Formats: sequence, C-alpha cells, structure tokens
Amino acid sequence: RQITILPGDGIGPEVTKEARRLLEDVAQAVGETWVLEEALIGGAAYDQTGHPLPPETVAKCKASDAILLGAVGGPKWDHLPGDVRPEAGLLGIRKQLGVFANLRPIRTWPGLLLASPLKAELLNGVDMVIVRELTGGLYFGEPKQRLNGGDAVVDTLYYTRHEIERVVRQAFDIAKSRRKKLTSVDKANVLESSRMWREIVQSIAPEYPDVTVEHLLVDTAAMQLIQRPNQFDVVVTENMFGDILSDEAAVLTGSIGMLPSASLGADRPGLYEPVHGSAPDIAGTGVANPLASFLSVAMLLRHSLGLEDVAQHVEAAVLHVIESGHRTRDLAGQGGESVGTEQMSALVRSELQ
Amino acid sequence: RQITILPGDGIGPEVTKEARRLLEDVAQAVGETWVLEEALIGGAAYDQTGHPLPPETVAKCKASDAILLGAVGGPKWDHLPGDVRPEAGLLGIRKQLGVFANLRPIRTWPGLLLASPLKAELLNGVDMVIVRELTGGLYFGEPKQRLNGGDAVVDTLYYTRHEIERVVRQAFDIAKSRRKKLTSVDKANVLESSRMWREIVQSIAPEYPDVTVEHLLVDTAAMQLIQRPNQFDVVVTENMFGDILSDEAAVLTGSIGMLPSASLGADRPGLYEPVHGSAPDIAGTGVANPLASFLSVAMLLRHSLGLEDVAQHVEAAVLHVIESGHRTRDLAGQGGESVGTEQMSALVRSELQ
Ligand SMILES: CC(C)[C@H](C(=O)O)[C@@H](O)C(=O)O
Ligand SMILES: CC(C)[C@H](C(=O)O)[C@@H](O)C(=O)O
Repeated sequence: RQITILPGDGIGPEVTKEARRLLEDVAQAVGETWVLEEALIGGAAYDQTGHPLPPETVAKCKASDAILLGAVGGPKWDHLPGDVRPEAGLLGIRKQLGVFANLRPIRTWPGLLLASPLKAELLNGVDMVIVRELTGGLYFGEPKQRLNGGDAVVDTLYYTRHEIERVVRQAFDIAKSRRKKLTSVDKANVLESSRMWREIVQSIAPEYPDVTVEHLLVDTAAMQLIQRPNQFDVVVTENMFGDILSDEAAVLTGSIGMLPSASLGADRPGLYEPVHGSAPDIAGTGVANPLASFLSVAMLLRHSLGLEDVAQHVEAAVLHVIESGHRTRDLAGQGGESVGTEQMSALVRSELQ
Repeated sequence: RQITILPGDGIGPEVTKEARRLLEDVAQAVGETWVLEEALIGGAAYDQTGHPLPPETVAKCKASDAILLGAVGGPKWDHLPGDVRPEAGLLGIRKQLGVFANLRPIRTWPGLLLASPLKAELLNGVDMVIVRELTGGLYFGEPKQRLNGGDAVVDTLYYTRHEIERVVRQAFDIAKSRRKKLTSVDKANVLESSRMWREIVQSIAPEYPDVTVEHLLVDTAAMQLIQRPNQFDVVVTENMFGDILSDEAAVLTGSIGMLPSASLGADRPGLYEPVHGSAPDIAGTGVANPLASFLSVAMLLRHSLGLEDVAQHVEAAVLHVIESGHRTRDLAGQGGESVGTEQMSALVRSELQ
C-alpha cells in the first residue's frame, strides 16, 4: 500500500507526524509494509518551489492508495496572488484527484460537552455526516474574473447534471447505511442550480425507498443546525453551502479539534484531512490536538484500505483516551489532565497495542 | 406621509394589521394624518392577479415614503414556476425599489434568554447589526439558466464596483454611529468577487479612521457567530452570505419573533419587514408575535420618517411589555403570561399612550 502524506503548513506537520506514527503502528499490527511518503503542498510548497502544488506532488498522490493532508495556509502567504496561495494548492489537489464528495462526520463526544457553545440538552444524540460537493460550483466555475477594467466582477456557480447526481447518490448510499434520513440543502427559491439540484434529489429518491428525504433552504438549515442539531442524519449540499454549514456544524459540539474529514472520488485515492485549519498561532508549540488527524486516519483505513475493523479500533482508542480524562489544550477546562501533541499521540497508540 | 402596507401571506396579514394600528396611533400622537394603503404581494397577489408583484403594487410603493411588509410564501405556492412564486414578488420589490442595504439588528432581550440555544454566558452583550447587500450577487446575476438541454446549470455572482461601494459605505456609516467596529465577511481565498469586495472595504476604510475594520472568511464567520457572538458590532457582507449568516445570527438569541429589518436605498422609500417568515403552520390562529413588525415600524419611523424619538418610544414600550412578563406563544416557557397577537399589540399600544 502506498500512502502519501502532505504535512502542509502551521500545525499540519506536527499532527501528520503523529498520524504517520499511527499508520506505521497499524501497518505493523496487520503485518504489512506500507510505503509512507511525504510531498509538498501549500505555503511550504510555495516557499520551496514557487508553487503551492508542485507537479511531483500531484503525480505522487495519483499513484497512491490514499493521501493524508495536514493543513494549509497562514498569514505569511496571505499577500500572495490567488493562484499561488496555499489554498490554491488545496483546491488544486481536490480537483486533480476528482474527490467530489467531502464527508464530515460530526458527533458529540461524551466528556467533551462542556466546550460546546450550545446548551447541553440540545447536544443529546448529535450524530450527523455532512456530504459536501467538493469539485464544482462557485469554487471552480468560469468566468471568475474582473470585468470592464475592474468596474465589475463575476464568479460562476456552474454544475453539470452528472456532478450533482454522483454526489447525491453518494449521500443516499451513506444515509442507507445509517439512520436512513437525508436532508438536501439548497436555495431553490432563488437559484436555478438549486432547483436542478432539488429535481435530481427527487429523481434519485425512488432508488432508495427506505431513505426519508427532506429539502431545506440553506438559510433555514443554518438556523436548524443550531436549534435542533440532533434532527440531522446525512446532509448533502453544494460546495459553498457545504463550506459554510459544515464549519457552523463543526463548532456546535465544541470539539473542532476532534473532527476528521474524507474526500472521495469515483475511484481511489481518497484525501483525508482534519477539519481544523493550520492554526498558525499555536504552530510549533507542541500543543496541537492530533486526534482529528487520527480520526482522519481511521476514515482512511475504512474508505481507502477497506480495513473497517482497524478503523473502529482506532476510533475506540481515541474515545477511551478521552474518557479516561486526557485533554489537549483546546479541550482543557473540561476537567482531566492536559497533555501535549506527542503525549496524546502516545496515549492513543499505546491503547491500540 | 404615505405608507404602503404589503400584508402578503401566512401570518403577514395578522401582524401587519396590528402594525397598522400602531402606525395610526403614532400618527395621531404626533398630530399628523398619514395615508396608510394596502397592496398585494406574494401568494396573495398571485391568487388574485396571477402575478406575485402586480404593477399597481410597484407604483404604489414607489409613490410612498415607506413600505411595511408582512411576509410572503407558503406550501400552497411551492409548486409554481420560479418567476411567479411569492418569493419572486419579494425579490422583485427589493430590486424595483433599489433597496440595496438590508439592516438586521440582533440583540438579546433581557427576560428572553431562556429560549436561546446558546449558553447564557455567551449572550452577554450581544448587540450587532448585519448589513446585507440585497439587490446584487447570485440573486440577480445573469445567466441564471439550464444549459445544454438541461445537462448543466449556471447561476452568476455578479457585482459592479458601485454596488459594493455603496453598501460598504452604508455599513461604515452605521459602525461610526455605534461601537465603531466593522466586520467584513467574504470568501477572498476562493472568489474573485470577494477579493474585489475586500479591496473596496480596504480602500474606503481611511475615510473612517475611527472605525476598526476586520475581515473574516464566511466559514470562519459562521463559526464565530456561535462561539463569540458578542464580538460583533456591524457585519457587512454580500447578498447570499448575508442571507445565511443573518438567519444563523437570528436564532442565537432565541427570539426570532422579535427581530425587525430595514432595507434602504439611496433615496426613500425604505422597505421594512419582520425577519420571521410567513409561518403558514400558525397562520390564522391568532398566536403570531406582532413585535417584530412593531420593531420594524420603529425602524420605519427612524429611517424613513425621521422620527427618532417616536421610534425609541415604540422600542421602549416593547421592552417594557416583555419585561413585565407578557409573552406570545413563540416565547412561552420563559415564564410570564401567554397572550395572543391582538392582546400583545394592545398591551404595547396602551403602553405608548
Ligand atoms: C481553505 C479553503 C479554500 C477551504 C474551502 O473553502 O474549501 C476550507 O475552508 C475547507 O473547508 O476545506
Ligand atoms: C424568501 C427569500 C427569497 C428571502 C431571501 O433569500 O432573500 C428570505 O430568505 C430573506 O432573507 O428575506
């Protein structure tokens, strides 16, 4: 098996270093030898090569079974033009790999409810997956440029039927394997793309007779995520709405340092990354929470390597370490002993033995 | 003075009926005779004329000093094609009146904190105004249509420099009159329109040396609204982001039935409407909360009629009735006696005598 690790910027290198150790432990445990190679992305790539996504990185990723990413971006590169900013590297690798479905599971962790901004009674049973379309919409549509010598500007929200169908099917499949409820989010009262999105969801629904489908407008969804987060099972939406709603949902549980994500395409490789960003303010200080990257490794084991059992072991180990009271600084103030990145990593990995 | 009332659909007619009574009381109190006329909009207009925004409504509104709207929409009209749906009437009147700046003040009400989904300690001092661009962006940009015989679809996020400048200036003016902090929300790491938006904010900032400016990405803003809502004073953003974020912010305080809005253009008339929708489920049952429409009347008195003193009286009367324990059903369970729409209206109006 070949896994490419893209450490990136900020706390990316720190958390992927521990995730790599986890991958090595797992490979040994299952008696295999995995090729773990690193490649450049983001600001780190720009600094060394002048581009946030060097061609060698793309080639290496395409030849892998899976890719684990840390994080990209930071104030150091904020002044750069759009096409060489770290984020362009992230958008580029998503597009190059064709990972059109971004899966973000969001759940409450027993013992970590105190950090939530929501009242405890609303958090009961929160357990959802947001499926965000990742390679279309406003992010990539053309034209995307200044007009009339800078007197106007345009971005383009463009989708093909095929792009919508494949991510909607993916979401239905996930709903089928869970609590069988799918919430499709759009702005069908304003956008033509949303009206087509809604039609496609409706036309695919009969293929999944046991899945209940509901349509929510994006503004209503933004409200209901806060008011009744436990009503959601699987949520599917287009790229920009998904960006906003998944970050909104991420903070509800108070544990953004715990949230993994998987970006999947029609074939391997998948791209796995923690939801938290590069957190430049704490980079290099050894306090970053490695658990979102560990849980991203679990998703990698599940979706790209077909190792469901091992994935569950990793998740159980993380849960056990949290329940026994260990906390990184982002989760401190919740009782329990505060530990650094390496120590948290060691605790989970020794739990796995 | 001429004020046009657009009752619309659902609970719209019930709440604007009480708001009309309030306007009549106020006119009498200031010793003037105001012409209060009604006109059709939304589903009600479609049912009677086949169009959600009849030309007579537009003409009447344009000839007024201010317009008070109830709400539009409901399941009855959801099957209609986009261009004759109730929402098309709302978008149409906004565009026809050129009301490019939608102001939504959001604050906590003493005595109403229990209904908030957020922990009480986060609500301390929440008092912000969201300024949403209302007549541009994805809502109106062309092309907005199916392509290739229905195999693809496009919506267009288009802004002129002038459209961005005028709403940003409006937001700076408001910030200057408040706590002097402006948060501009965009997605400058992905959208060209956001990069232009950010440049324009930066270029106007020197005209307001006492206003502190901060830029937030829309996904970060969606998180911070929940995590630290009291950090915001004035928030300015484009149309679609504003739609999502203002509804997210609206539920934070737990009192969406209390939130007014004003939509202003370069000249009069302004358009005033409660933030809550048409609530078809409770329409006609006499339990709707009229206070958002009363507070919308207060904004109308302030911004379109220049009656700041009277506006403050109306706001004080609403506050007093809430503090003395009266609640409509949406705010029940917070202690206090539950009253219907008419009774709540009477309580506030008698307080004003
Ligand atoms: C960094 C940025 C381009 C990216 C996005 O908007 O997709 C990020 O916010 C995310 O959600 O992964
Ligand atoms: C009804 C709809 C078209 C409208 C909008 O999106 O502007 C509403 O959500 C609002 O915020 O006033």
